[in-house]
Amino acid sequence: MKSINADQYTLLPADTVFPSSGTIACQGVKGAYSSLAAQKMFPGGTCLYFKTFQAVADAVAGGMCRFGILPVENNIHGSVRSVYKILQEAKVHIVRCEDLLIRHCLLAKPGTSVKDIRKVYSHEQAIGQCSGFLKSLGDSVVSMPCLNTAIGARLVAESKDTDIAAISSPECADIYGLEILRDGIADSDNNHTRFICISRETVIYPGAGRISLILSTRHTPGALYEILGEFASLNLNLLKLESAPIPGKDFEFMFYIDIEASAARPEVLEMLNRLSVVCPDYVFLGNYSGI
Amino acid sequence: MKSINADQYTLLPADTVFPSSGTIACQGVKGAYSSLAAQKMFPGGTCLYFKTFQAVADAVAGGMCRFGILPVENNIHGSVRSVYKILQEAKVHIVRCEDLLIRHCLLAKPGTSVKDIRKVYSHEQAIGQCSGFLKSLGDSVVSMPCLNTAIGARLVAESKDTDIAAISSPECADIYGLEILRDGIADSDNNHTRFICISRETVIYPGAGRISLILSTRHTPGALYEILGEFASLNLNLLKLESAPIPGKDFEFMFYIDIEASAARPEVLEMLNRLSVVCPDYVFLGNYSGI
Repeated sequence: MKSINADQYTLLPADTVFPSSGTIACQGVKGAYSSLAAQKMFPGGTCLYFKTFQAVADAVAGGMCRFGILPVENNIHGSVRSVYKILQEAKVHIVRCEDLLIRHCLLAKPGTSVKDIRKVYSHEQAIGQCSGFLKSLGDSVVSMPCLNTAIGARLVAESKDTDIAAISSPECADIYGLEILRDGIADSDNNHTRFICISRETVIYPGAGRISLILSTRHTPGALYEILGEFASLNLNLLKLESAPIPGKDFEFMFYIDIEASAARPEVLEMLNRLSVVCPDYVFLGNYSGI
Repeated sequence: MKSINADQYTLLPADTVFPSSGTIACQGVKGAYSSLAAQKMFPGGTCLYFKTFQAVADAVAGGMCRFGILPVENNIHGSVRSVYKILQEAKVHIVRCEDLLIRHCLLAKPGTSVKDIRKVYSHEQAIGQCSGFLKSLGDSVVSMPCLNTAIGARLVAESKDTDIAAISSPECADIYGLEILRDGIADSDNNHTRFICISRETVIYPGAGRISLILSTRHTPGALYEILGEFASLNLNLLKLESAPIPGKDFEFMFYIDIEASAARPEVLEMLNRLSVVCPDYVFLGNYSGI
């Protein structure tokens, strides 16, 4: 298991600018939310697409891509634990994060009108999040789950059928030549996903204000309390805290922790080093900027 | 927002036995994992099926069903936040929980052999969890996502096609008259979901050792630390702790908390009452037994 201390990281000089281009590993297909997050972070970047999150991490760890994009948390569905599992093992580090607002639209081929639609393709979660809108279309309209929202849009674009639509992003309308029939059709407009950017280099860019850790504690009353005491004594805000069971060990937990802190502060570095000694399974994931 | 104190609960006498029958609200269809959890908790119970988690909570809050079953956490996919959102608002209380091991099998109509199979139906998560096995079947086998694993089994049973199979539970093989072609086909055999049993009655059964709370804290350094201090001072173990963003409020969090404690101890009750005063959005979800 990777167990790196913060002092093995390189703090980049204050005038270093975060790159705006490069080859970026993304899971999914063009237009999928990972690729939209990549575009937001790297306006001049080139995306390479991979089937799984693990393949994205491997492409970065192996040097094929300089950066990789992975989702870590959605405000409705919670943490993406499979990504945390990968971060724990892979030789990659978080260098940035970005929050992406998920905006669902009804897309169809130009000329289609809403009343013609009989089938709506999308990812199951998106179908669920637009259930009110779908119900308003009437009982004769059937939902067709597919692997992601961009695949749904592509499927509609490539099909000869004229009675089908997709729930997908406005960007996918552009990419696949579809028309936006209805915008903002989700039951709640508060749906966002936090994506991280990973790199093989162990560097900290200027302005990094968020530190992510994975650690476990002894399963005794007060064990986590003591760790939070370390943060409180330095007056550091918690940005995330989540317990996750450890496979095969009943009643023992990993914690995913984000704090508002900079490893450029010597007392923060010292505190992290203490934690790395005290906590089993300690992993320093990175110190980075972004919300 | 519901804000109930633990002292408004009825502690049932020590000789009260948890019911083994009754009408149980479940989401999904016969054979879905919710119904298997219901069977485990209520061997003599009768399940009524509902389309959504909200409908399950409504059936219990409205008195149509005495109990209801909801999933709250899977060790791979994390907490089911949509269920927590329902628990926060609905007039229901947790009275029990049960851990269910998820065991994926390849099911087909009797007489089908593995080499004939061209399409495999299942829930998207189950397809992902069996990716190694599916790859071993070769490139000509296509995965067909459907709404849940039991629906996949039913679809195979009702179809005339002889080249299809489902990834589903051994129980669904019995229910839908299918044969288990391969057992234990998941990449990892460590896959379990914790289900809770909800009731309209505000009661605590004997042996209840787990308390679930939802609360928020001021967003200041040390706010959560103070709350964990309350647990530590009573020597109580944490069983779950998770931060979740509050819709529309950046950098403010709800916490889902489980502690190993009994409201029968007066000092625990006092502590809960203090929390209900100090913490915004405090909800006591229940004190119950089960792992």
